[in-house]
This record gives sequence, C-alpha cells and structure tokens, in this order.
Amino acid sequence: MSKLVECVPNFSEGRCRETIDAILDEVKKVAGVKLLNVQSDSSHNRTVVTFVGEPAAVKEAAFASCAKAAELIDMEQHHGAHPRIGATDVIPFIPVRETSLDECVELANELGREIGEKLNIPVYMYEAAAKRSDRKNLPDVRKGQYEGLKIAIREPERKPDYGPAKMHPRAGATVVGARQFLIAYNINLSTSDVKIAKKIANNIREAKGGFKYCRAMGVMLEERNVAQVTINMINYEGTPLHRVFETVKNEAARYGINIIGSEIVGLVPMQALIDTADYYLRLEGFDRKQVMEENI
Amino acid sequence: MSKLVECVPNFSEGRCRETIDAILDEVKKVAGVKLLNVQSDSSHNRTVVTFVGEPAAVKEAAFASCAKAAELIDMEQHHGAHPRIGATDVIPFIPVRETSLDECVELANELGREIGEKLNIPVYMYEAAAKRSDRKNLPDVRKGQYEGLKIAIREPERKPDYGPAKMHPRAGATVVGARQFLIAYNINLSTSDVKIAKKIANNIREAKGGFKYCRAMGVMLEERNVAQVTINMINYEGTPLHRVFETVKNEAARYGINIIGSEIVGLVPMQALIDTADYYLRLEGFDRKQVMEENI
Repeated sequence: MSKLVECVPNFSEGRCRETIDAILDEVKKVAGVKLLNVQSDSSHNRTVVTFVGEPAAVKEAAFASCAKAAELIDMEQHHGAHPRIGATDVIPFIPVRETSLDECVELANELGREIGEKLNIPVYMYEAAAKRSDRKNLPDVRKGQYEGLKIAIREPERKPDYGPAKMHPRAGATVVGARQFLIAYNINLSTSDVKIAKKIANNIREAKGGFKYCRAMGVMLEERNVAQVTINMINYEGTPLHRVFETVKNEAARYGINIIGSEIVGLVPMQALIDTADYYLRLEGFDRKQVMEENI
Repeated sequence: MSKLVECVPNFSEGRCRETIDAILDEVKKVAGVKLLNVQSDSSHNRTVVTFVGEPAAVKEAAFASCAKAAELIDMEQHHGAHPRIGATDVIPFIPVRETSLDECVELANELGREIGEKLNIPVYMYEAAAKRSDRKNLPDVRKGQYEGLKIAIREPERKPDYGPAKMHPRAGATVVGARQFLIAYNINLSTSDVKIAKKIANNIREAKGGFKYCRAMGVMLEERNVAQVTINMINYEGTPLHRVFETVKNEAARYGINIIGSEIVGLVPMQALIDTADYYLRLEGFDRKQVMEENI
C-alpha cells in the first residue's frame, strides 16, 4: 500500500457556488487525489474541504486550490461568523497510512514556502509544524483576524514564517501545519449520575494531569438516561484507544460502575483498530502487511 | 469498497515452467484480478495459485485457467506425491470483503456448471458448496484419485454434481467449492509444560466438544522453551479470535498460567481485526465504512 496523507483546507467562501466549484476543480484535476468531503457554511461564509492521496499529489492539490482562492476571494469584501485571516485560511496535513507526523510537518513546510514565494502570501506554521511555541494553537495565530493582522504583521513577533511580512492585498495570510488524525470517541457508563462522568473525564484529560493527547468532558445522554465521557483523541498513537478505555473502566469501578459501551463517531484510521486488536490479543510481531486487504 | 473474493486453485503441474506460466497468463489477463501468490512444488508436481478480485472477474479467471490446464496437462502422464483427480484439481472460493460465504457457494455453483457444460469435465462440489454430506471433505471426494475415479465415476454415489459422468480423457475431474478464510493463530503460554497446552487445545477444539470452527493442538516451541496452543480458525465469523483467546486465558488460569503472547501466521482479513477491536472496546453501532481507508 502507498503512503496516504489527508488534507483539510478551509476557504473563506461559503456562499458563492461558482467560486467554491472553481476551487474544488483544482483539487479534482490532480491525479491520485480523492475528494472525500465538502462542507460549506453560509453564516460562517466558509468551506471545509477534505481530500486524501499520496503526499506529493496532496501538496499539489493544496497549492493549486490555494492559488485559485487567492485569485477569486477578496478578503476586503469578506464577512462571516468564523475567525479567519485569509482566502485560504488554514491548511492542515494529517498522516493516514505509512506516513509519520514528521513527514507531514516536512510537507507542510514545503507547501508554506511555496505559497510564500510563488503566491506572495504570508504563511504561519502551526500545530506540529509550528516554529515557535506561541504559534502552536490556531486561535493565537489568528489573533486580530484579517483586519487586525494587516497592521500587526509588521510587528516582529507576528512576522510570518514564509513569504512577505505584509498581507496579500486580496488573499490576506494563510496558516499551514500538520496534526494527527482526531478520533471522536465516547464511553457510556452504567449510571445516570453525570457527576461521575465528569470526575472520570477529569481523571483522563491532559489539562487535569491525565493523558497528554486526550480531551474529555462528562455529559448526560438525556434520551438514554446514561452518563457519558465524551473524548477527543487528538493523537491515537501517543494515547491509544485501549489505554483510555481501560483507564475509564478502572476509574468507573471505583464507583461500582461499568462501561456499557463505547462509540467511535465518524472516521477512524485502520491503524487505530489494528493497534487495539494487537493490544488485547497480545500479538507478537504483527505486521500490517499481514492484513489481507493491504496486499490488493 | 467493492466486493472481494479470493480464489486458490490447485493445478496438477509443478515442474514445467511453460505450462505453469501459460496457466498464470490466463489469470493475469483478466482485468480487475490481482495475482497474490504462486507456489509450485516439484515433488507434489502441483501449483497452488492465489488471486483476488470482484466475484465475476475471479470466476472468469478461474474458468480461463481451468480451460488452459485442461488443454496443457495430461493426467495420463501425471505423477506426484499429492492426491489429485484432475488437471485443475480443486478450486475453492473464499469471501474476503463485503461478500458472504453463501455468495461464494453460488459463485462456485456457477463455475462448476460452466466447467461441466463448456469443458466437458465432471465437477464435484465440496465444503460449504457440497450438495451431499459425504462430499464436504476433500479427501472423501478425491478417494481413489485420478486412476481409481476413472472406474468409480460410473457408480451412482460417485456421480458428479455437474458435467458428464465420465472422466475427461486428459483433464480428469475437478472439485469446486467455497470455504471461509482460514486464520493460522498461535497462543503462547507462560509454561514449558506441553501437557497443559495439549489439555487446553482439547478444551477448545471442535472434535473434543470445543468451538465448532476451531482446530487445535498443543506443541512445544523448543527454541523458546514455551508451550503453545496452535490453532486453525476455519471460520472467524462463526468462532471469532477474541472468544478463543479469552477461553484459552480462562482455561490456562486454572493451572495458574497466563498467555504471554499470541501470533497470527500469514494473512488475516481486516474484518477479523475490526471484530476484535469492536468486542474489546464494546463498540456500539460501529460500521466498517467508518474506517478511513474504506472510503478511498
């Protein structure tokens, strides 16, 4: 099987069908890239595009769609509820198969340099590709939004990582980076006491001394009268599913409570399920190439 | 993702490279079929071919290679250590993805009828596709081998399921059928006492009152000084990996012994690993389409 990278660029246009289609066409015309999802929101005036493919093809599609957005979207005219600093607001790369996060960081840097040099758009690197610790989080990079950054970009601490230290007259600036695949994962408890779900959520979330790549909250599923720990697994290699499941099971047992079920919401990379089977079956020397479908 | 079926025909030629290549060419020229493996054994004078693809394409490749074998292999001249009744000795279909065993039984019957009618080769249906209980097992169908069956085929209880009730003058007869994917699975124990591995093997194998789709033996891994339960999982949907693992764990505990690891030898269908993760994480409503790679 070949390397596979996901890319989820966000464009500052969620209303004009022609503009959105023209941007999507740039993705579709790259051989080896598969468009998975398009979500346009007119109140946000923003479109989130998801595509996958081999690293070089994905980078090509990201660059081409960014160039088209710079041509068609005028940030001077843009209004929408969602924070943004540019026509192509943010471009994250996500490893899916046979690719490391480090390779996605490298890919992000190649793209950032290209956007800066060829399109004359200032670029900020974020998340795993951040070059400064104060640029890891997207809200920090987007501070002041398009309008504020036009002035602030002259300050040394807002100097872009690639491209000119002044906003592109129509396209603004772009944030490029790399992150792990996010798995939305919920664990349901044999109790209707949401306080217990909140306590367990605190036990496992990074902010409270729990797992580094785990964000969690306790919530009530009113329709089932069941308390739930709802989790964002932001790096399933660093903090795997089975470890979170087993820890929640142990913490729940302290209250005499069991896990009645768990759910994966949306997509999950195959590797996360292989890792789960590998752990529980105590597999020795299992290689992903042993999966029948990987040979096809 | 599309339907995927595996086919593993066995041909009665393991020495002549030209004949083997001519048969393989018939498989390779069918669009949508992927040749995975070829194993020729000269003392058996037999070649085992593994290919996968969509059902119709796989059936086409099976028929074309069987026709070519009938053209090139003369059973009157064939000698080899392995039991056989024809040029194409046996053709099993195995469900891999989005295909049931029943669909493979149907596919096997279509192919059997075609081989009988178009090639004038008598065909016996076996395993899940058997039409009589005394034809489920391959050794029973092959009784007397090519030489013996030439006479015995006239008896009513040896009448073929498709095709003429007399041997093809050069190609003999062919066995066609459907079976589940076989997973070779070993479980290693925290003991060097092989008697315990043998007792546990007896607890889980069908023949001794254990799981229906489980064949098991206790053996000694001399190089590691570890006792092992070595298992053939002949239907991982009927008897899943996790149930065998957990039962061996429980039975071992009765002797104060643990499972130190397990191994999957060779290939495993992705569904078997998804089922394992599903069981241990107690997943609710998980759909295989949620696996990222299934959307590509």
